[in-house]
Amino acid sequence: MQVNNKNYRTIWYNKDNESVKIIDQRYLPFKFIIEDINSLEEMLIAISDMHLRGAGLIGAAAAWGMYLAVKESQQEEFINSSAIKLSKTRPTAVNLQAAIDLMLPIIINAKEEDRKELALKLAQQISDKDAESCKQIGKNGYKLIKDLSDRKKGKTVNILTHCNAGWLAFVDYGSALSPIYEAFNNGIDVHVYVDETRPRNQGARLTAWELGMQNVPHTLIADNVGGHLMQNRMIDMVIVGADRVAANGDVANKIGTYLKALAAKDNNIPFYVAFPSTTFDKSINNGVKDIPIELRDEDEVLFMYGLYENEEVKVRIAPEFTKAVNYGFDVTPARLVSGYITEEGTEINN
Amino acid sequence: MQVNNKNYRTIWYNKDNESVKIIDQRYLPFKFIIEDINSLEEMLIAISDMHLRGAGLIGAAAAWGMYLAVKESQQEEFINSSAIKLSKTRPTAVNLQAAIDLMLPIIINAKEEDRKELALKLAQQISDKDAESCKQIGKNGYKLIKDLSDRKKGKTVNILTHCNAGWLAFVDYGSALSPIYEAFNNGIDVHVYVDETRPRNQGARLTAWELGMQNVPHTLIADNVGGHLMQNRMIDMVIVGADRVAANGDVANKIGTYLKALAAKDNNIPFYVAFPSTTFDKSINNGVKDIPIELRDEDEVLFMYGLYENEEVKVRIAPEFTKAVNYGFDVTPARLVSGYITEEGTEINN
Repeated sequence: MQVNNKNYRTIWYNKDNESVKIIDQRYLPFKFIIEDINSLEEMLIAISDMHLRGAGLIGAAAAWGMYLAVKESQQEEFINSSAIKLSKTRPTAVNLQAAIDLMLPIIINAKEEDRKELALKLAQQISDKDAESCKQIGKNGYKLIKDLSDRKKGKTVNILTHCNAGWLAFVDYGSALSPIYEAFNNGIDVHVYVDETRPRNQGARLTAWELGMQNVPHTLIADNVGGHLMQNRMIDMVIVGADRVAANGDVANKIGTYLKALAAKDNNIPFYVAFPSTTFDKSINNGVKDIPIELRDEDEVLFMYGLYENEEVKVRIAPEFTKAVNYGFDVTPARLVSGYITEEGTEINN
Repeated sequence: MQVNNKNYRTIWYNKDNESVKIIDQRYLPFKFIIEDINSLEEMLIAISDMHLRGAGLIGAAAAWGMYLAVKESQQEEFINSSAIKLSKTRPTAVNLQAAIDLMLPIIINAKEEDRKELALKLAQQISDKDAESCKQIGKNGYKLIKDLSDRKKGKTVNILTHCNAGWLAFVDYGSALSPIYEAFNNGIDVHVYVDETRPRNQGARLTAWELGMQNVPHTLIADNVGGHLMQNRMIDMVIVGADRVAANGDVANKIGTYLKALAAKDNNIPFYVAFPSTTFDKSINNGVKDIPIELRDEDEVLFMYGLYENEEVKVRIAPEFTKAVNYGFDVTPARLVSGYITEEGTEINN
């Protein structure tokens, strides 16, 4: 996608010195910084310290981490231990483990002298496949937006999204935002209400930024506002991403998603979930009961990051004596989901 | 209520120099500053620049403003023009106008030499009546908490609240928080989940602070979290305040209240609204359709205040090019309200 009118992916191979480049997302939206990752060690830090994040992108980063490891040494023992190190950077990321599990046996089974080139090829394939899936999600979801636009006789289609399920969370295009980009590029009049998504504010920091960079009209709102907008028919559809989708259709996604799904249902507004089909976790039957929810550091609630005199600073926003709890995700029951958009198609639920 | 183990109201008469003292709420929770208001002019600034806020407290402040005006001059023309100036400080505040409407004719009908003493007496009465109503709301709401505590055999009663409907919004005790203080003081094991209440963060700044000052156990959460907590039976009841209650029982309150009411309904958790009966607006039949919703400055969404190196600073939290919309309130339909708690009693709805 575009950044300052130039095309980028979130991660790519740098042929010149056989390294990997990434957008260092920690500095967005205030600074656009590209980081050159030259070694496995640097990739381990980039993943664990969240220079990059997002299901699809973490998977691609692990794949490129495998390549960097094999570049360093083609010996089996080193490659195996590198895979273990990569696995441990973000232990709950499904795509990370999937990328490693795919690459490791193929590399080990090849001759030592072929391993580096093979690792490069596989990492590139995993990246391309992620981008391709997201592009197809865009095409599939586009039909739903086009249909709404037709029914509104070309008037603006207002879409609410929560958190960041855009190209910054994948290699390119994104999941929830991909249909919006496809619609925008096809001349549909779309406007996006962006939930700021406390406590980490991925909506305000990442979604607003990437929509702005593609010139997609958007408006930032506090997470509290979506219900009022839906009650007043100011939203035509909701699209969110997913971190995990259970066999019964329950959707784990960023905390607060469930509240928006309730408001959509109460006001008869379609609520769609978009994700690559790898996000399905058929080992979990009942999402609400059985998907484990990450409990994160309370400081994400008690402090906030923002720009002060051109520098990003961390400010305290609650009394010293106050404690906080910080659940990272919630689970939206399938009964509140209108449909699931994947690269394979759209499954209408309600 | 208590601040650092000393009893305070939010506004009180200072006999020594015939002035009015208020807690300057702009500096909470980081600094506790008492402001001495010596003239009508200073009170006009205190109300319009939000040194104080909250329905009940604004009413009392207007009453004390009338007193300060009459102290300055007992002439009818001056008193009338002062009343008009006070009316314009916060044009939508119902209690502000009610206090002025009550005081003005009584003062004007009295002899000039009696007016100052009369204004003082009336202002004190209005303050006392606000505090008394809130105390009674506490006693009435207490029964609901006691009942839950009994049903839980004394185990912790977990209560969710949104925004600040505590003593800082009134002269004393508060509306939504008053039953909680009453329960706590009666030895009930209560714990409060405090919504931070973006964008102005009255939950994080005011509710957390005042609960802490009374030693009431509380935990701050992002506004996104309440749905997850209710789904997981971590909340036993919700209590919020109200800015206006329509004849049909629809409740206008701080933006985001509606989302919590939906989650309470979805999980069969009681959702109570507490307010002085003056908050009823019987001129409005249908709250959802007809209560006007204030659209506030987008900067409240795009920037955030917090403590940095011991000074409070304003930081930007979204890209420069991103716009925001900032609705201040939403309307919760009566069908989602379990009951209304006023000083007159508790009316069970669903």
